[in-house]
Amino acid sequence: MSRPKVASLSAPSAVSAGKIVSALLAVETPGTGFTDITREAARFLHSTGAREGALMLFIRHTSASLTIQENADPSVLVDLTTALTRLAPENAGWVHDTEGPDDMPAHVKTMLTATSLQIPVLDGEMALGTWQGIYVIEHRARPHRREVVLQFTGSTI
Amino acid sequence: MSRPKVASLSAPSAVSAGKIVSALLAVETPGTGFTDITREAARFLHSTGAREGALMLFIRHTSASLTIQENADPSVLVDLTTALTRLAPENAGWVHDTEGPDDMPAHVKTMLTATSLQIPVLDGEMALGTWQGIYVIEHRARPHRREVVLQFTGSTI
Amino acid sequence: MSRPKVASLSAPSAVSAGKIVSALLAVETPGTGFTDITREAARFLHSTGAREGALMLFIRHTSASLTIQENADPSVLVDLTTALTRLAPENAGWVHDTEGPDDMPAHVKTMLTATSLQIPVLDGEMALGTWQGIYVIEHRARPHRREVVLQFTGSTI
Repeated sequence: MSRPKVASLSAPSAVSAGKIVSALLAVETPGTGFTDITREAARFLHSTGAREGALMLFIRHTSASLTIQENADPSVLVDLTTALTRLAPENAGWVHDTEGPDDMPAHVKTMLTATSLQIPVLDGEMALGTWQGIYVIEHRARPHRREVVLQFTGSTI
Repeated sequence: MSRPKVASLSAPSAVSAGKIVSALLAVETPGTGFTDITREAARFLHSTGAREGALMLFIRHTSASLTIQENADPSVLVDLTTALTRLAPENAGWVHDTEGPDDMPAHVKTMLTATSLQIPVLDGEMALGTWQGIYVIEHRARPHRREVVLQFTGSTI
Repeated sequence: MSRPKVASLSAPSAVSAGKIVSALLAVETPGTGFTDITREAARFLHSTGAREGALMLFIRHTSASLTIQENADPSVLVDLTTALTRLAPENAGWVHDTEGPDDMPAHVKTMLTATSLQIPVLDGEMALGTWQGIYVIEHRARPHRREVVLQFTGSTI
């Protein structure tokens, strides 16, 4: 462990908490893998007139999940899928197997990633890093329709 | 990676941010495994007069954690426990072993799951999916008393 | 699974949602490992005049992440680093290897831990448990400058 030797804090900005705006995003996944929803999240945010606050994303499922990951090299997403399969393989002696061999691994992968995410909003935009994209991870083999609640809390124009 | 071909967004609803209501939930766990606290979270929410906003849950421990998982077939929870044990076994040569063989695996399992969760609240209810329940995961072998902070932010009646 | 036999809820406290205060914390990491930023988060919180609400932390990277973990015995952090390396080893046949052998494991470790954290704030202080500290986990081998957005939402003095 280390204490930060150099840790600098910017001047804070402050606004009134203001509004909460909620909507439901339906995402059709093509089966196992990552679907980029960054653009849809930004479109929602702009539609709310958001200035400063936070965007929450919540996925209403237990065999699909959310993550923020690199958006530059698609092979990163291939490797992330491989990593999840290694951590929760099929044919690992799962007790729960009535919904198919990909179902229990899907629950494990959901538990190891995120069901809810929060992203700060500054100056009307998500404060994502340069290489950060927002993804729905489909853990089932077949295509599914997944529901993601989007909710902005903060000041609006 | 795929861009969503069909991604539909519902009409947004907007309210004033309003209130923050906080309470502490104490949960007695029976030792390793999952304890369903969905009902307790809903009871808290209803007591606040919540309409629209978000419920945050935060567990004040590093050897127990939170997750949202399937609430239908109890064998899913058995398999999730097995999965965590495989990812962080005892007798894996941990340096930190003074608090018992189940302690260091408990910290690893906590790191791989969630310490904080957010759940959107719409029309006075948590917007959980049909099969989603909220669980405290006890990672220690023996029973513990665990503290979970519940906090609703949003509009109230 | 178990329903809590004993689950007690404290009397709730309620305040107006009030303010959102945001700032950017820059953290210089020394390479792979854990950097404690609890003190910096508390300093930010005190500077805002926070009373009740929540502190969000968001890391703007995909090869470094956040976690809340034990702050007492430093060997816990050594073992957590070991656990992450076992879950996402180098030389595991990753497709994405152009940024060095430590890059793809860093993305996997980020996915398995947290990009955003929320911590309740009560009576002007983070409601952390006795043994909880907030950490930036650097997953790359070499030192990096990492950006963490801090955002308080709630009532202020």
